[in-house]
Amino acid sequence: MQADFSVTPIGRVESSLTDPAEAPKQGHEGGPDAWLVFETGVVEGLDGVVPGARVIVLTWLDRARRDVLRVHPRDDLTNPQRGVFSTRSADRPNPIGLHEVEVQSVDGERVRVSDLEAVDGTPILDVKPVI
Amino acid sequence: MQADFSVTPIGRVESSLTDPAEAPKQGHEGGPDAWLVFETGVVEGLDGVVPGARVIVLTWLDRARRDVLRVHPRDDLTNPQRGVFSTRSADRPNPIGLHEVEVQSVDGERVRVSDLEAVDGTPILDVKPVI
Repeated sequence: MQADFSVTPIGRVESSLTDPAEAPKQGHEGGPDAWLVFETGVVEGLDGVVPGARVIVLTWLDRARRDVLRVHPRDDLTNPQRGVFSTRSADRPNPIGLHEVEVQSVDGERVRVSDLEAVDGTPILDVKPVI
Repeated sequence: MQADFSVTPIGRVESSLTDPAEAPKQGHEGGPDAWLVFETGVVEGLDGVVPGARVIVLTWLDRARRDVLRVHPRDDLTNPQRGVFSTRSADRPNPIGLHEVEVQSVDGERVRVSDLEAVDGTPILDVKPVI
């Protein structure tokens, strides 16, 4: 048996994107600029996150289905079904999103980033530098 | 207030690396080849994960400290402390590891990958294709 682990959001996405159906499938297809708004208690962890830095934002895709193991890639029914682990589908057992973005500005607990395809209100789990 | 979310391991790393202190800091610094061993219930999701594919493995770094917001990068005390979100430290509020690897072979629920720096027994949360 496998134990479960608990993740705690460290912030939320603030974005003009509100409808998941209108969100681009990937950031490089043209997501809008957006704010990452962090919980006050984790702001200390942002030291070193500076304008121009390329970072990976990990999000919790809270509208995703977790009981799905096969999908039609890009929600296109003409694409043959594939296992979710060979796709970037949001629907998967642990719906963690990865978003590579560039930091534009940092204002306390608010970090402005480019091209983020996550919808408004999406919980943020982590931020890491791109290597 | 933020709600917590629950993640469920979909498998475990099987590796010759057993001591975290001996694990390289990043895979490209020379991790060993290793097996990803998936739970029977999610094997269907591996359809399309084939030899030669480059994938990102998401792990749960279960030995990490979650109450740390500042670290000396690379555990080197001569490096000035930085916020964890500007580093790849395992210690962070949600200790999710990202590992970019190449699939070498697939044998049912066992997937052989190159250069994985995670220690033996590390829980696997997700696998995604590199874009």
